[in-house]
Formats: sequence, C-alpha cells, structure tokens
Amino acid sequence: MFCEKPIDHDVSRIKEVLAALEGTGLKYQVGFNRRFDHNFEAVQRAVASGKVGTSQIIKITSRDPEPPGIDYVKVSGGMFLDMTIHDFDMVRFLAGCNATEVYAQAANLVDPAIGEAGDVDTAVITLQMENGAIAVIDNSRKAVYGYDQRAEVFGSKGMVSASNDSASSAVISNEDGVTAEKPLHFFLERYMDAYGKEIAAFVDAIVNDKETPLNAEDGLQPALMGLAAQKSLQEHRPVQISEIQ
Amino acid sequence: MFCEKPIDHDVSRIKEVLAALEGTGLKYQVGFNRRFDHNFEAVQRAVASGKVGTSQIIKITSRDPEPPGIDYVKVSGGMFLDMTIHDFDMVRFLAGCNATEVYAQAANLVDPAIGEAGDVDTAVITLQMENGAIAVIDNSRKAVYGYDQRAEVFGSKGMVSASNDSASSAVISNEDGVTAEKPLHFFLERYMDAYGKEIAAFVDAIVNDKETPLNAEDGLQPALMGLAAQKSLQEHRPVQISEIQ
Amino acid sequence: MFCEKPIDHDVSRIKEVLAALEGTGLKYQVGFNRRFDHNFEAVQRAVASGKVGTSQIIKITSRDPEPPGIDYVKVSGGMFLDMTIHDFDMVRFLAGCNATEVYAQAANLVDPAIGEAGDVDTAVITLQMENGAIAVIDNSRKAVYGYDQRAEVFGSKGMVSASNDSASSAVISNEDGVTAEKPLHFFLERYMDAYGKEIAAFVDAIVNDKETPLNAEDGLQPALMGLAAQKSLQEHRPVQISEIQ
Amino acid sequence: MFCEKPIDHDVSRIKEVLAALEGTGLKYQVGFNRRFDHNFEAVQRAVASGKVGTSQIIKITSRDPEPPGIDYVKVSGGMFLDMTIHDFDMVRFLAGCNATEVYAQAANLVDPAIGEAGDVDTAVITLQMENGAIAVIDNSRKAVYGYDQRAEVFGSKGMVSASNDSASSAVISNEDGVTAEKPLHFFLERYMDAYGKEIAAFVDAIVNDKETPLNAEDGLQPALMGLAAQKSLQEHRPVQISEIQ
Repeated sequence: MFCEKPIDHDVSRIKEVLAALEGTGLKYQVGFNRRFDHNFEAVQRAVASGKVGTSQIIKITSRDPEPPGIDYVKVSGGMFLDMTIHDFDMVRFLAGCNATEVYAQAANLVDPAIGEAGDVDTAVITLQMENGAIAVIDNSRKAVYGYDQRAEVFGSKGMVSASNDSASSAVISNEDGVTAEKPLHFFLERYMDAYGKEIAAFVDAIVNDKETPLNAEDGLQPALMGLAAQKSLQEHRPVQISEIQ
Repeated sequence: MFCEKPIDHDVSRIKEVLAALEGTGLKYQVGFNRRFDHNFEAVQRAVASGKVGTSQIIKITSRDPEPPGIDYVKVSGGMFLDMTIHDFDMVRFLAGCNATEVYAQAANLVDPAIGEAGDVDTAVITLQMENGAIAVIDNSRKAVYGYDQRAEVFGSKGMVSASNDSASSAVISNEDGVTAEKPLHFFLERYMDAYGKEIAAFVDAIVNDKETPLNAEDGLQPALMGLAAQKSLQEHRPVQISEIQ
Repeated sequence: MFCEKPIDHDVSRIKEVLAALEGTGLKYQVGFNRRFDHNFEAVQRAVASGKVGTSQIIKITSRDPEPPGIDYVKVSGGMFLDMTIHDFDMVRFLAGCNATEVYAQAANLVDPAIGEAGDVDTAVITLQMENGAIAVIDNSRKAVYGYDQRAEVFGSKGMVSASNDSASSAVISNEDGVTAEKPLHFFLERYMDAYGKEIAAFVDAIVNDKETPLNAEDGLQPALMGLAAQKSLQEHRPVQISEIQ
Repeated sequence: MFCEKPIDHDVSRIKEVLAALEGTGLKYQVGFNRRFDHNFEAVQRAVASGKVGTSQIIKITSRDPEPPGIDYVKVSGGMFLDMTIHDFDMVRFLAGCNATEVYAQAANLVDPAIGEAGDVDTAVITLQMENGAIAVIDNSRKAVYGYDQRAEVFGSKGMVSASNDSASSAVISNEDGVTAEKPLHFFLERYMDAYGKEIAAFVDAIVNDKETPLNAEDGLQPALMGLAAQKSLQEHRPVQISEIQ
C-alpha cells in the first residue's frame, strides 16, 4: 500500500491504520518524496556518516512559488499539515530521531484571503529534537523567485548544507550584475527524479521483500508535529508532542 | 561619547544614560560594528530601497569559531547579552523597526563547562517585529569552520542574502571534491574594515555635527531583546519586550 | 539516418556522404550530443538572443576524467578528431558560424604511452571565427576531479558562462575548508539527459518532417577543424580551414 | 629603486638597467602589483606547494572595464606591453618559470579608433612554458560588467582557480533571477590592498636587507613576451622568446 501524505488529519484514524497494519507483514509506504531528492539525500548521508559530528542546529527553508487556490486552502487542513508536514518529515530524516516539542510563530502576510479562510501563509517553527538538536523551519506560501528548498545541519565537526537546483548553470554578467537562473519553479520540476526513485524504492520493497523506506510510523510523526504546531499557534506557547493524542 | 555594546546589562542604568543625554546635544554612539560591514550594509540597502518588497522573514546566522574562556563566560552577562546582542541589533537594522516579542530555545551542547557556569552555547531565537515580519537568529559558540555570519531577508518581491567572506576566492578541485577557503576566522578578520568605518562615522558625526548612526536608544533595544530572551528561556514561553523594565 | 561523430576522418568520404544526401530529402543527423545539454543550450540561447551583444571571445574547457586505453588511442584518429571534435562543434554552435583558421598548441603531458602512440593529450587551440570572434579550447585527457565541461562567451554587452554539474548541491564546511561535490564523472553522467533529447529531436524531425538540428554539413565542419588542428600542430603554424580538402 | 612596469619598451634599454644594477647590491623592485593580490597569491601558493601536481594548463582572463583614451593608446606601447604585460608576469608567477614561445591572435573589436591608432583591443595569447605547461591569456579592453581578473592552473593532481572580488556577497533573488554584484570596477578597487602589500615588501627588502620579490629580470621577461606577442601578431606565426633581442 502506497499512501500519499498525510495519512489523515485525525491522529486516531492514523493510529487505526497502524493498528490494522500491525503483524500483517503488509508493505506500507507513505509518500514523503523529498527523502529521495539528490540534495537532501546527500545532506542526510553526510550527517549519518558522522561528517558534521553531533547535530546541534538543523535548518529547513521551504517556500512555495505561489499559494494554492482558496478553495484548496479551505480543505487543506492548514499550512502545517498540508505544506510544513514535508518539512517535519525532513527534520526527522536529517536528525534521525523524533521531535519532542514544537513552537510555531506564524502570520498571514501573503494573501488576506488565506487569513480569511482561517489559515496562515508565513511561519517560523522551532523544534526540540530527541537527540538534543534544535531545529527550525521557515515557510512561505509565496517566494516570487521560485521553489525554495534548502537544508542545513550544523554540528560539532562542521556543517552540511544544500541549496536549490536550477534549470542550468548559465550565468550572465552584464552592467546590472552577475545573474544566475532562478530555482526550479515548483515540486514537479524539482522533485521529478525523486518521485521516480520513491516509487522504485516501493517496488523494490515489494519485489525483494524489504522494509519500505517510510512506514506508517513515518506518516504518524509528522502529523503529530503539525497538530502540535497548530496548537502552539493557537495557544501561543511551546507544545509537547506528547500533548497530541 | 563612544560606548561599546552593551551599554549595561541593567535596563534601569541604560535608561539613566538616555535620561542624562536627553537635551544635551551630546554625540553618543554605541558600538554595533556589524552595521558597517560591507555585506550587511548591502543587504540593508536592498531592503530599505524596496528590492525585496515588504519584509516577511528575516534570518540571521551568527556562530563564533570558538567559545570564550570560562572565566569570561561567568562575567559575560550570558550569551544573549554578550553575543546575540549583535544579532538583535542586526535584526533591528535589517527590519528597520523594533521587536515586540521574543521566544528563545537554547541548550548547552558545545562545552559542559559553559552549562556549569549557568549559560547556554547554542540557540534558536524567534522574534516578532513591529512591521509584521518574523525574525529568527541561530547561534553557536563553536563553528569549527570559522566565524559564520550570514543574513537573509525574504519579502513580497524577493530575497536578499549575504554569505561569509574568506581570505581568497581560490578553489581547489581534486579527487576529494571542490574546496573553497573557510570563512574568515573571527571578528577581527571579518570586521576589520567595519571597525574603521564605524569610527569614521563617529568622527564624521562630531566634526560635521550630524546624528551618530547608532544612538543610546539603539543601545537600549538590543538589551531589552536580550533580557526578554533570557526570561523566555527561563520561563519557557514567548516574552513581550514590554514585560522588560 | 543518425550518424555518430565523426562522419569519417577522411574529408573526401564525408563529402561523398553530403553528395549522396543532396536532393534526397533524407533526414540525416550527426551525433553531437552536447548541443542538447541544458547548460550549453542556455549559453547558446543567451548568445542567440543578443544578451551578450556581439561575440568577441569564446572559451571552451573540455577535459576528460581519464584517457582511453592505448589500443583505442591508436585507432581514435587522434585527440583532435576523437575528443576535441565535440568542442569544435560547440564553438560553431555558440558562435553561430564557421571557423576560418586554427592554431593548435599541444603536448603529451598525461601519459607517455599516448605520446608513443603518436598522439597528444593536452592542448590549447585558438580559432578565428567568421564573425570576428576569437575562440579558444583547452583540452586534457585527464582531469582527476572529473569531467570538466565549461563554456563562456564574452561580448560587447556582457558574458554568459556555464559551469559543471555535480551529483548534488551539498556542501560540507569543516576545519579543512568548504567542499562541494566534484563534477559528474564522465559523459554518461553529464550528458544522459542530452542523449535523450538528441534522439527525441531526431524522431521529431522524422515524424513531423522537420530539418534535423544537426545535418551532414554540421558533421563536415568539425572534421575540417580537427584536420586543420592536426596540420597546425605538425607544421607549427596557424592553418586556414580552406587548406583542408 | 622602485620602477613601475614596464621598465622600458626597448629591450636594449632594459638590459642597460640590468647591467647597471649588476653587482651594486642596490635594491630594485619592478611594480607588478598583482602578485600581491590575495587571490593570485593563494593560487600561486597552491601550485608551489604541489596541490595541483605538475602544471599542464595555465589560464589567465584579464579584461578591463573600459579602454583608455585614444591619446593614451597612441603612446601606450600597444596593448601587449601596456596591459597584457601584467598577465605575462602572472603567467611567470604561477608557472614558476619563463615562457619560450608566444603565439598571439588579436583583433580590433571594441572601438574602431583603437584600430586606427594601430592597436588591438581583444586577444587570445598562447604561451609555451619552460616547464612544459601551455599557458593561455585572454584579454579585452572592455568588459561591461567590470574588471575581470581570473586565473586557473590545471595539473596532474587537480586544479586551482580564482575568481573575481565584488563589493559585497549580497545576492538578490527575484522574478528575474539570482543576482550577485558585479566584479569590483577596476584596478584601484581590486588591487588596493595589493598595492599596499607591494610597497610593504619593498620597504621590508630595504630595511631588512632582503631580496626584493620582483627584480629587474622580472621586469625584462614580460617585456620580451610582449615584444614576441607583437611580432607574432605582425608575422602571424608563433615566435620564440629567443628571437627578441
């Protein structure tokens, strides 16, 4: 079973999925495509192989080129569960552990219609990770220069960071400056290869009877983080993941 | 009068300075040298001239190459008033307004002796700015690759960012990769020119009877932000600047 | 008909191909894959759209990660016809015209066995282009850091340049410096997408009855340039393309 | 004695200087300021310390932002002796040896008035170095994006390259692309620090009775290379340095 993210917006229903899968041996993969991106894979590999030592600060920048339509915003579950959920997954992927606490500062700065629909479009979210690292995600629904997808892990032995991809390395130097291409426009351009590798990994898990790279627990945790972020925003305080049921 | 930062760790004493200066016409400049750095000046100029539109997210990375000695840590006033205070100034410089609220997530990850001395060495600090932008600062007392001093302002029309300076642009490509020089080691290397420009601006203010570029109010605000960050860390909640007296 | 480069090492046989094709309406495409590379396409597009004004200096760097086996070197037709021929095509692609003269400075610096086989492995080749621009190609059979494929066009209104691709944008900063990944290893990695686009263009020309993007004349000219380079090296003087029959 | 470059345009007069200095112990330094530039120093240090192995290809890009006035062009001695002479010195600095042969391809592409004054403004010059490396210099009198001063040394173990300096590291990302600042405008901006270090080295040689870093022989060789380039251009053939008397 391949399930796009999020499994559900309701934790109890996600837990039903986990319970139903328990002991069946069924292959279940949740669709966090960014783990298969060449840049984030390289960052994770550097961290996992000890190249930055003990992780201390993890930073994710994730900004869309344009907000979705208001009709979609209304049924999206909110920015944290619709968009940031990918970054919550990325934080877990890079840290190699779960978050214990979330603090969300957010605002409606891009389009008033999003605020009227009850959602935010700009956020800075701080997370305490189980391994002691502090993570921070910054989000915007509208980066006019394109899809901005960066990550950085800082630790006791150094830092690894990944920047954006663009359509070419061509750079024009003229009287106005030295201009490179914008980042690739959106997820279809940036993650096309990653989608292919994601499905290949799923097929490989079935054909060769391996664990899927992202199981139902990997679907649950980001949802908990998203719900904690929502609660943090509403109550204007840091929220423990354990508060979310 | 040229006063190195911070004016004091005690707000009431800083306010005494402001009161004493009031109406005297005396030239008073507080020593936030980074405002005179060529990179941060260029970022501020881009923001002030409208190149990024309305500011929405402001990010500062500020990491020292090595922590000060423990004897110094004990009398430093704490990382927020000793080190982050420069970043609080930078946030005000780039935002062009004051902060209204601070949330500090911090830890002792670099050296246990710093924790024993009652201080932190790693932090992610989120600030709400008066103009609606959200700012975030990340700090470490030890970046093994050198002094890491970056800034980024993201807004409705784009983003401006500044990276580190290094001793040369030489890059070596060999079997191990493509390797550029590390950032300049510490503040004397990175901000040597800025210190010169800072003093020149002070002299210019006196000789030509101009306003100093950083007055006593510019010394007060970062101290308020630092004290709010300390309170936020102690009470584990966002703290209003107005709570600090 | 799709013909891999070079059509032949013998100009009279290439001319037979041109004569045989004449008036048949047969679709003929020669396999200069690099014209379909995203970076070089972007450089060419910038030049063709006037972004650098009148072209004055064209520079190509083309270095392989490792030399071919000596058995291959012996039957390769020599470096100029085997390897540089791609760069001769690239010069024509970027200049939008033919070369009139070639001067080749070359040496055997990589592997003595290549010299014993009568070939060179290192070269700097200067070309006079019909449009007045001067072009220069530098080649090596062995760049230990990987496949080095860059281009730069300098003109009256500015410059456009393209650098290498690498497997990811991940950069590691530590005590040793700031290290990015090496360029992609060789042509299969660098030009995989270009090979696909090359064949798609060929199919498109047949299916939709269009001109192929590279015809037999495009196969002839680089061969003339390669033979002129060989003659230049032997006679140690600039050689006119018109001297080659 | 500190002598700006070139010592003279007439080789016999330069040789008189060498003869007059012989055995006097007088400190003589010729003003090739670029050897004191932080970027080129770093490239030279990497080469001299063996980091690129045996040098095989040396590339210099040297382009001015704007041509000098025609009155100056007429008395300049020609571009090779006025402008390229710095690059001839740089080639010797990076190679650590003299050139044996020069081939110059050049044209009048920037301003017809320069051609009318009997000079060229665009050139690609190939040099055979004593150590086996091939060097290539490309020059233009007018790069609209600013002073373009780059160098690259490629060898058996890798490559070292240096790019331009700019006024700041600020980069603006918007709908038009990702734009960094232009290179510093001209030699006063780019080489200000180098001029200081050059004079400091001269003073140091006198005060501490050391060899000057650039003696009269270092003034002679680039003049020979410039005169060989002129002869190569006139006679349209490679010219041996030994042909110049």
